[in-house]
Amino acid sequence: MENGSVNDPSRSPSKPDGLARLVRPVARLRTPFAEKFGVPRQSGLVAEAEGRVEFLPEFAAPEFTRGLEGFSHIWLLTGFHENPIWTSGATVRPPRLGGNERLGVFASRAPNRPNGLGLSLVHVLELGPGFIRVAGVDAVDGTPIYDVKPYLPWVEAHPDATTGWAGGAPFVRQPEAVILPEEYALVMGDVTAVLVKRILQLDVQPAYHDDPDRTYGMTVAGWNVRWRTGPDSTLVVYEVTPRETPK
Amino acid sequence: MENGSVNDPSRSPSKPDGLARLVRPVARLRTPFAEKFGVPRQSGLVAEAEGRVEFLPEFAAPEFTRGLEGFSHIWLLTGFHENPIWTSGATVRPPRLGGNERLGVFASRAPNRPNGLGLSLVHVLELGPGFIRVAGVDAVDGTPIYDVKPYLPWVEAHPDATTGWAGGAPFVRQPEAVILPEEYALVMGDVTAVLVKRILQLDVQPAYHDDPDRTYGMTVAGWNVRWRTGPDSTLVVYEVTPRETPK
Repeated sequence: MENGSVNDPSRSPSKPDGLARLVRPVARLRTPFAEKFGVPRQSGLVAEAEGRVEFLPEFAAPEFTRGLEGFSHIWLLTGFHENPIWTSGATVRPPRLGGNERLGVFASRAPNRPNGLGLSLVHVLELGPGFIRVAGVDAVDGTPIYDVKPYLPWVEAHPDATTGWAGGAPFVRQPEAVILPEEYALVMGDVTAVLVKRILQLDVQPAYHDDPDRTYGMTVAGWNVRWRTGPDSTLVVYEVTPRETPK
Repeated sequence: MENGSVNDPSRSPSKPDGLARLVRPVARLRTPFAEKFGVPRQSGLVAEAEGRVEFLPEFAAPEFTRGLEGFSHIWLLTGFHENPIWTSGATVRPPRLGGNERLGVFASRAPNRPNGLGLSLVHVLELGPGFIRVAGVDAVDGTPIYDVKPYLPWVEAHPDATTGWAGGAPFVRQPEAVILPEEYALVMGDVTAVLVKRILQLDVQPAYHDDPDRTYGMTVAGWNVRWRTGPDSTLVVYEVTPRETPK
């Protein structure tokens, strides 16, 4: 690694240089989300979204996580592996602003960004040999993890930080605004039914899709779930089918 | 990027695969720290440690940071570029534990880790064209930055998170426990003198170095500063000289 090589303004960051870095997964994250649609837009928003950090064989020895006992939260540095390689878009259109206002990619948490690296803060549920069971995931199943770091609240907890355009916590619907008929809950089981309800309480569909006749679908925990907008801004689940097993 | 390629337990993460990723700097961080010794061990610990995120030409257009106004804090995803490439050490010896207890690399924030990626939370002082002036840096001058993300307190502020072996905030000496003779403060200027005092208030020297005759040195903001342990656990600066300009 050569320091100072970025000093030359004529160099292009598109070409590898001494400060470029090839990162390789140390683990992958198993989650209930088979596809991007329906994934919570930040970590921690859906506590019921459980995941599993599965270390690759080279990093699976218990020594690698020795001392992680007693930490309630960990960082996952992830890759947005299902997003296209970033090309040159300086701006993005965050769904929170209705999808029609452009903001700088470095002023947003959009997945389509230079280097495609994500940052998720998750709650530790269980530390096992070669794995960590976590809650509050916000990533597609199979997401590569490039690093795991303990969370340090005296450094990283700033409840009074200001957030410009992002405002405060995202809008969450009242539980009764999501209508999941009991027959579907029975089919999916209580745990998955609660997870589906929590996801739909968040503003999962784009804000500019307010067409009441439009239907939506997502795949969660092995179930294809379809819903539409009902009266009084409710969301009504109208179909639940087992996901056809891939491969 | 091919999903599922980590599924094969026989693959080695030392070989690039579909989930490996070449990351390139989008910016570099200018800091007062010419060398690793003396760098605060976490971001935010020394508010007086100011830095400057200087975007590379490809990312310097104001569009890239449009909307960052109003955010008090940002994340920097950095590279520990002065650390050797990680080889195979599953454990590290954190300085906070006196350097003689081994903990898993994923249970620590040690710089010598797989993929060598760092995470710093810094305070935004000024947003300018092609740069961001920040406070609370914890990195060597010239550190590559692979991503800049806004801080979201409703997701990332967990003041009550538990921290296992790391306990609470690090030990900080009383201001009067650092003796910086007025003659040196005059030479360096007030701003640098305060920065040097703040750094020395932190436990900058390894805990297992308690030899009162031993001397230490660091280079901060263009000054070589030398100190030793004095009576009553004080630290006494005994030499301040301008750093010879490199190159």
